[in-house]
Amino acid sequence: MTYRAPLADLKFSLTAVTGIERLYQSSAYPDFDGDLLDAILDAAGQLSEEVLAPLNRVGDTHGAKLENDKVTVAPGFAEAVSAFAEGGWAGLGAPAEHGGQAMPKALEMAAYEMFHAANMAFALYPTLSQAAIEALHHHGTERQKALYLPYLTSGEWSGTMNLTEPQAGSDLALLTSQAVPDGDAYRLTGQKIYITWGDHETRDNILHLVLARLPGAPEGTRGISLFLCPKYLVNEDGSLGERNALRAVGLEHKLGIHASPTCVMAFEGAKAELVGQPHQGLMAMFTMMNAARLAVGVQGVGIAERAYQLALAYARDRRQGNSVLTGEKKAPIFDHPDVRLMLAVSKAKIEAARGICLLTAIAADDYRLNADARVKRREDFLVPVAKAWATDIGVEVASAGVQVHGGMGFIEETGAAQHYRDARIAPIYEGTNGIQAGDLVGRKLGDDAASALELKADIQSYIQTNNLSDDLKASVAQLDTALTAFEAASLWLVAQKKACPADVQAGATAYLKLTGDVVGGYVLLRGALEATARLKANDGDPAWLKAKVELWKLYAAHILSHAQALHTAITDGASSLEALSEGL
Amino acid sequence: MTYRAPLADLKFSLTAVTGIERLYQSSAYPDFDGDLLDAILDAAGQLSEEVLAPLNRVGDTHGAKLENDKVTVAPGFAEAVSAFAEGGWAGLGAPAEHGGQAMPKALEMAAYEMFHAANMAFALYPTLSQAAIEALHHHGTERQKALYLPYLTSGEWSGTMNLTEPQAGSDLALLTSQAVPDGDAYRLTGQKIYITWGDHETRDNILHLVLARLPGAPEGTRGISLFLCPKYLVNEDGSLGERNALRAVGLEHKLGIHASPTCVMAFEGAKAELVGQPHQGLMAMFTMMNAARLAVGVQGVGIAERAYQLALAYARDRRQGNSVLTGEKKAPIFDHPDVRLMLAVSKAKIEAARGICLLTAIAADDYRLNADARVKRREDFLVPVAKAWATDIGVEVASAGVQVHGGMGFIEETGAAQHYRDARIAPIYEGTNGIQAGDLVGRKLGDDAASALELKADIQSYIQTNNLSDDLKASVAQLDTALTAFEAASLWLVAQKKACPADVQAGATAYLKLTGDVVGGYVLLRGALEATARLKANDGDPAWLKAKVELWKLYAAHILSHAQALHTAITDGASSLEALSEGL
Repeated sequence: MTYRAPLADLKFSLTAVTGIERLYQSSAYPDFDGDLLDAILDAAGQLSEEVLAPLNRVGDTHGAKLENDKVTVAPGFAEAVSAFAEGGWAGLGAPAEHGGQAMPKALEMAAYEMFHAANMAFALYPTLSQAAIEALHHHGTERQKALYLPYLTSGEWSGTMNLTEPQAGSDLALLTSQAVPDGDAYRLTGQKIYITWGDHETRDNILHLVLARLPGAPEGTRGISLFLCPKYLVNEDGSLGERNALRAVGLEHKLGIHASPTCVMAFEGAKAELVGQPHQGLMAMFTMMNAARLAVGVQGVGIAERAYQLALAYARDRRQGNSVLTGEKKAPIFDHPDVRLMLAVSKAKIEAARGICLLTAIAADDYRLNADARVKRREDFLVPVAKAWATDIGVEVASAGVQVHGGMGFIEETGAAQHYRDARIAPIYEGTNGIQAGDLVGRKLGDDAASALELKADIQSYIQTNNLSDDLKASVAQLDTALTAFEAASLWLVAQKKACPADVQAGATAYLKLTGDVVGGYVLLRGALEATARLKANDGDPAWLKAKVELWKLYAAHILSHAQALHTAITDGASSLEALSEGL
Repeated sequence: MTYRAPLADLKFSLTAVTGIERLYQSSAYPDFDGDLLDAILDAAGQLSEEVLAPLNRVGDTHGAKLENDKVTVAPGFAEAVSAFAEGGWAGLGAPAEHGGQAMPKALEMAAYEMFHAANMAFALYPTLSQAAIEALHHHGTERQKALYLPYLTSGEWSGTMNLTEPQAGSDLALLTSQAVPDGDAYRLTGQKIYITWGDHETRDNILHLVLARLPGAPEGTRGISLFLCPKYLVNEDGSLGERNALRAVGLEHKLGIHASPTCVMAFEGAKAELVGQPHQGLMAMFTMMNAARLAVGVQGVGIAERAYQLALAYARDRRQGNSVLTGEKKAPIFDHPDVRLMLAVSKAKIEAARGICLLTAIAADDYRLNADARVKRREDFLVPVAKAWATDIGVEVASAGVQVHGGMGFIEETGAAQHYRDARIAPIYEGTNGIQAGDLVGRKLGDDAASALELKADIQSYIQTNNLSDDLKASVAQLDTALTAFEAASLWLVAQKKACPADVQAGATAYLKLTGDVVGGYVLLRGALEATARLKANDGDPAWLKAKVELWKLYAAHILSHAQALHTAITDGASSLEALSEGL
């Protein structure tokens, strides 16, 4: 039930796959270098292993409780929130001018993968605070930034995002919370649901960012504004004033992430400030969305890694039957091909998803170095893929983890079941994976598929400029075929945009899957080639390096091989679905 | 949260797919005809909808409890056990000479699909009793049959199967429970785990069938004997004697099926009778295994159907966003292509899995009509496919059901999460799906792949003897391609059996998937052609019939299209896995 921070894998992914070295001592990250990268990852790993991971199960069994208008969290969580703040983690990626460390997003996401793996329910707390930091940083006034950001970047206060209402989930156009002017402030009224860490007593104050409508605002998404609404009112010197008129009125009884208090929040004429321009609240949300969606993708990677580690340890320990691989009797089940295949494919998916997320993050970092439209397109294109592909494999790997355990996997005390439960939320929140797929084929693919064609060209050029050993030719041929299918599917989709928009939506999820499969293949191929080079140079643990090569080959045979089938699914169109308006 | 028995779908599958009419008034089933089929399905549907389904959630939240050596079940469950017995359901498929109704297995499985859909935790109770009936029927002495079977077929007593021990799960060779002779009986000592409905107070007595070793028995599986060990000793007139020395010493805290008491059973010198010959216990188990594994496959279908119904109802009710299919604003999410596709593919998988299970069942029925080796091979070949393919789609569909619900799916009160939790056990128990795949490529495929080649020939001949409309040519081409891949993979696997047994095991799970995909395709194609004929004849609800055609087309594009990729995975071999003995 322990968690070992996968530091070697993370550093390999950051260097061999994303090439993070190009950020070292760059104009955007002057203080950042390899030593700092190592130090930060090591410290994040230590916090994850020693503080967060041991609380994962007590968080699940104890959960959060709402009594007498107060939310109490599971034993040990308040102390962990303090340790997190004291370690300076709350401001890891936040701007330096407000107390943050301004580290690259790729590094931040690597650290968060470990936090989520160790304790996903806990790590949601800083994830949401991070989103609040982004919102204020990009849309707050100078006064708001100066007054509020230091408390968030230090971790003294926490932040939340209040979007969803019962009738307005995926479709925020339907939200009805109201904010009416009151002097130089506003009074906010409405009910919000699914508010992660919406209330708790572990910090002195909570800053709620809330979407609501001003009086007379246009209907739909063009009439939504963003407000800041603190739990305790804040004086201009930062000291706390009276309790604001808002409270948690319910906690959801959830399938997983029990330790994260998911609140129903009631705003009852709460005092609030406008953030950004009136009616521009959704725009403000969109600027945060890339970061938030990527962060959820990283949760998928983290929970998958945790589930995989647990299953691997069990498989090495549990002995049943005779091994056809080793000839041993009463062998570890790890030595049965079927079990080892489940584990190896899980690991390949994790490394692919990790690479996809880190490639997305480093595109954001690259853009800070050089505000190039092509780099921005890459980030925008990869965000929905990182969110959906990584969270889908989170569920798959957690499910495989249960399966590897056999009957023990179904027993809660083992821990595998918790990962299976926890993992299930990530494909849903922060925009369901269906919403992600719609975003990908819609705005991100655009009308000319430029983003997809650039991606394909970059991967193809990587293949062409590298000498491939005979050993890898069959697997690389799978990637080539997949790239061809990806290009054809991209062009088909943009062609259908005018001809038949329903076709585009019908093919969206399969297209996202294919895109993720291809980018994941690129990630693993990069890893395999780097590992081959290091093997030749006698640089590193040979078994570990050899595994990178074999995981790539398994990925090609078991995942990339499906590209043509996905092309078939993508281009199947919507006519069968139209015919199924009745009869289901 | 209600469940509607899918009577029309079940009857369609039984007639159009399995052709159950050939059993009507046959030598093996003289009393069985279409009216009886309708009457039994309707009654099973009514029991499921009105008695079992309403208890599903209270069973989940309340669970079973062990206090003072007594297991109490959730409120309403004892009454449901009585209703089940009083309805005559306990003996539905049991031999007539001992009070059963001797109905065909295909009909029995159709009824059990509804019981499991309505309340999987409940339906495990008669499923296990049914296994005990089979064991005694095939291996008991005349005295044992006459004494015990009437109580089981009437449902007055229940039965259990006691196989697993902590160190002996998939590998029963490792079991250590002991039975020592004591007069004309035996005294049984040992601990068994994962005993489904191992103890409860809802019936007067429980008959435990227990695997144990006699003194001096050979090691391994050849030294295991089967014993009958009643909770209360049974006098020769059937009256109950004293309490036997066995008891539930623990209840597992499980991910799902909370209402089913999963017991740790302690046998403490309990009085027992031998069933069958000494050391032949595993053989006795094997004769039951086909039935038990098929029954678990049916659980996969049932839980998928239940999850699908819940998600479909939600999708028709929940309104978010504008529909590209209908042009409606604030449309039901059912009218978004991505959501409808999730539901339609779920439904296609359910119909495929249902058909696979019923084809397996009817092969057993056919064999009772005509003891033909080819028919037996068909049943044996399909059993692991029915078990694993259907339980895998059970998890997939339950997961899709959560996803369709969005955030509501993660809230326990919705019910979707319970299905996701409950479904997860079915790929594990009664032989993990990895064990099923090993059985398929091992004993079931044999050395000559006869079973696979016969199956392929039958499906191909079905395609060739039917006129296919142009509308179906593209989808049938997918099935043709899949059949070619299936044949090639089958021949490759038997060729590797001598050359490299590890390759065979490494390809086993992908081969089972391909086999299920192909047979499922055959099922849906049969449905599509029958529906087309009925549409032409104006015989039935056009929307419902048209859906059968469209589901087949979606299945071809989204599932059968993966056949070539599965062939690649199957034939990838074990060399990468061998290289991964270290480094993961």
